[in-house]
Amino acid sequence: MALTGNMIIGRDAVRGTEGVQRAYDPTRDQHLDTEFGLGGKAEVERAAALAQAAFDPYRALSPTRRAEFLDAIAQSILDLGDELIERAHAESALPVARLTGERGRTVGQLRLFAQVLRDGHYLHATIDQAQPQRQPLPRSDLRLARIPVGPVAVFGASNFPLAFSVAGGDTASALAAGCPVIVKAHSAHLGTSELVGQAIQKAAIATDMPEGVFSLLFGAGRSVGEALVAHPVIQAVGFTGSRQGGLALVNIANNRPQPIPVYAEMSSINPVFLLPAALQSRADAIGRGFADSLTMGAGQFCTNPGLVIAEAGAGLDRFLASATEALAAKPATTMLTDGIHRAYDQGVSSVSSQANVTCAVQGQQAQGPNAARAALFVTDAESFLGNEALQAEMFGPASVVVRVRDAAEMRRVAEHLEGQLTATIQLDDADIDAARALLPVLERKAGRILANGFPTGVEVSHAMVHGGPFPSTSSALHTSVGASAIDRFVRPVCYQDLPDALRPDALKDANPLDVWRLVDGQPVAPKA
Amino acid sequence: MALTGNMIIGRDAVRGTEGVQRAYDPTRDQHLDTEFGLGGKAEVERAAALAQAAFDPYRALSPTRRAEFLDAIAQSILDLGDELIERAHAESALPVARLTGERGRTVGQLRLFAQVLRDGHYLHATIDQAQPQRQPLPRSDLRLARIPVGPVAVFGASNFPLAFSVAGGDTASALAAGCPVIVKAHSAHLGTSELVGQAIQKAAIATDMPEGVFSLLFGAGRSVGEALVAHPVIQAVGFTGSRQGGLALVNIANNRPQPIPVYAEMSSINPVFLLPAALQSRADAIGRGFADSLTMGAGQFCTNPGLVIAEAGAGLDRFLASATEALAAKPATTMLTDGIHRAYDQGVSSVSSQANVTCAVQGQQAQGPNAARAALFVTDAESFLGNEALQAEMFGPASVVVRVRDAAEMRRVAEHLEGQLTATIQLDDADIDAARALLPVLERKAGRILANGFPTGVEVSHAMVHGGPFPSTSSALHTSVGASAIDRFVRPVCYQDLPDALRPDALKDANPLDVWRLVDGQPVAPKA
Repeated sequence: MALTGNMIIGRDAVRGTEGVQRAYDPTRDQHLDTEFGLGGKAEVERAAALAQAAFDPYRALSPTRRAEFLDAIAQSILDLGDELIERAHAESALPVARLTGERGRTVGQLRLFAQVLRDGHYLHATIDQAQPQRQPLPRSDLRLARIPVGPVAVFGASNFPLAFSVAGGDTASALAAGCPVIVKAHSAHLGTSELVGQAIQKAAIATDMPEGVFSLLFGAGRSVGEALVAHPVIQAVGFTGSRQGGLALVNIANNRPQPIPVYAEMSSINPVFLLPAALQSRADAIGRGFADSLTMGAGQFCTNPGLVIAEAGAGLDRFLASATEALAAKPATTMLTDGIHRAYDQGVSSVSSQANVTCAVQGQQAQGPNAARAALFVTDAESFLGNEALQAEMFGPASVVVRVRDAAEMRRVAEHLEGQLTATIQLDDADIDAARALLPVLERKAGRILANGFPTGVEVSHAMVHGGPFPSTSSALHTSVGASAIDRFVRPVCYQDLPDALRPDALKDANPLDVWRLVDGQPVAPKA
Repeated sequence: MALTGNMIIGRDAVRGTEGVQRAYDPTRDQHLDTEFGLGGKAEVERAAALAQAAFDPYRALSPTRRAEFLDAIAQSILDLGDELIERAHAESALPVARLTGERGRTVGQLRLFAQVLRDGHYLHATIDQAQPQRQPLPRSDLRLARIPVGPVAVFGASNFPLAFSVAGGDTASALAAGCPVIVKAHSAHLGTSELVGQAIQKAAIATDMPEGVFSLLFGAGRSVGEALVAHPVIQAVGFTGSRQGGLALVNIANNRPQPIPVYAEMSSINPVFLLPAALQSRADAIGRGFADSLTMGAGQFCTNPGLVIAEAGAGLDRFLASATEALAAKPATTMLTDGIHRAYDQGVSSVSSQANVTCAVQGQQAQGPNAARAALFVTDAESFLGNEALQAEMFGPASVVVRVRDAAEMRRVAEHLEGQLTATIQLDDADIDAARALLPVLERKAGRILANGFPTGVEVSHAMVHGGPFPSTSSALHTSVGASAIDRFVRPVCYQDLPDALRPDALKDANPLDVWRLVDGQPVAPKA
């Protein structure tokens, strides 16, 4: 497919007339060729009207039909071949191998949600059978299933141009739920966005989906995004990005005449706790593993390990020596955009100027534009507890090590943390009791708790939680990765005494969807 | 037990010193004897500190232990005997039979959540087994379970002094989830609140729960409630009441440094659609049933049928004749408070003054203080569509009938509605196609859809949804009645590669809680 610079609104290619934007190649510090026409309120209006018109017919399709659509999108993305990877590489500076992996993950997400649709557990089909003889009052027949909330706005993320952008996890889970999706492309990867948008449009046509099930908008600054979140047709929002950006959308959504939920995944420093026996037995290996996790993808992961907490002593010294040696050898890596690179340098500079903070090591000097140099800082618990600036996310390959005196001080540091996507414990068998004492604090703080790994690398599966208490997300009850991500876009409806012909398929007596159902409180398998 | 006028904070009785309040007997238009000492910020602080201290130990208890606590509360409430019913009757004017039924429902709710705990489905225990040989990367062991969110603030509702107040559905579901609860008593039933609070405290001591698992506060105006919602310890709020009251709490919660969810059940007029064949065959019976539903409990139900939509014609005329005759005979009934009675009279007066609205009937004149006279208004679709005032909730036994020309106009009226707790269709077999055409609109508008019944009477079971799109609630994804109400107070946590000894019981290899689990995407029964 060829890049046109046009938006996609339903089945049309629409040229935006509110100015133009070109994508930026951070490696070469220059803009790429294609001019993208930017949209405005008129295009938001048009996409929203189509999405609203598509909603009832789209959600009326069987789950199998929507699964076919998702599978077709996956194939259509693969069919883009090298063109997609090359464009994404030019726009993001992410290595081709990483982008190839990310494409696999994107396709895998779409197929996972196709399977979620075929399984039907997400419907929460629940039947309480009528009890006409009950005293003092009979019980009605009550049946619950979850239905889609309505059209959803999705914001492309800078750091996952494929897996959390136009056809990423938010889009896949919303489309699976039965919600039409309007994507606001991230300006950092406009060409990648258009290519993927074309792939979705092609799949929608091939599988005969209602027009308006998907649209893709370009916009300068915040105006298109804000108009989208404020539009009465939109019923939920998916966002991955900065705390400031996420909270701005939450604020708009809260102030609508009808407030709507914004699922914003925002800010996390992902503490790693090194327990004493683990440090004693394998401080070197932990240090090397940490350095790899910290610098992977230029540290541009929501789950980057930006904080390490350990007791002072010989073990921590060995960890620091090992991590320092590994980080000193890491080449500087081009970041996604010049803005992200500037913010990273400012964050590193801010932390290095705080009292009682020493810089243990920096990675190799930058050779080209927009390259981030890894950095590791060390401070003590008292300084960390007294200085909120040390808890700010530095989006990139930088981390702070907090030396604590003992387990009680480690717990105080843990208690002091804001909400996190992840918390990691490095532990050996002799650390089990210490870990058990720490665990309740970590459960209150984080959405995922890891032992003996590193938080980067988020599996897409049924048990994954990529979420957590504020400010890591705006809704601690939800995840944006994994099968449960669909929960954000469905709501329960109870059908009381409806004739079987009018019930949703999941609740019909014959169970034509062959779904598991909770009947009078107990799980019942489909007959199939 | 004797009324003392004291608050309950953990294991202590605490005398409030910020003024006093006495409960009001609406039937006799006079205040009752006991003086209740009102609390302030100091008591909020004390209850919050105790709740925070109780949270980790309380949630660490096995589900069975928490179920014992809920069962003990139920028994303890029953042990209050007639004293509770008499006090609730004096404070609310609700009939003794109704309050006896409501007590049964309250006890039933507590026992349902005890069963929810023993079943363990609510934990959503999910296991994705490790795949160490997977290419290109191995998969970690990932296990998800839901944990409680933290201390919860609950606001007693005026219209359910037992079932949605101190030990009502919000409290029962939050305590089941593992969340300590701080209740702000409703000033309309302070004595009932203290008695039930004493019953909970007694049960907490008898079952050896951590101090701080429950507290009960009294407060004048909004200061205590607002301080509670703003307190950093509180992690979620349950509220049933007016739109204005609910939105005030939502606003406070959104503006905290750490925003939290408020589950507010607010405002609904519960449209009833009368389809042509049903009207033709049984307009009289529908009219009588409607009049009974409208006037039950002086119309003081969230699910009161405040709107009727039907095609003009002989059937509708017969419905109106029947409803009018039945309503004309209904005696005026004492409302819960003088404030609610004033608001009802104002609402009725406002509707009756709108253009193109006629009053079809009023119930019998009031004989005593605070008695609400039923009222039925009639208007046409055009007037309804053009006048938002006709969509405002009149909390009490009043309803508006909208005459429509045809099915298309009925659908326009449905599309025009705000979010609702319920929508009802009266239909016969010949109406199935018309109902099928209307259903997608109703699904978008309401949380519960009924056929051939009336919306009052909310079953407490697994499939119930007492919730719906804004403004019926502040969170369309949740219900405040039924087993799923617990979903508001739990959040998912993923445990990656944790040693079995550190996993929550629901996720241990041996499945000691004997819960159903989703393993690699498929439901697996416990071995027991």
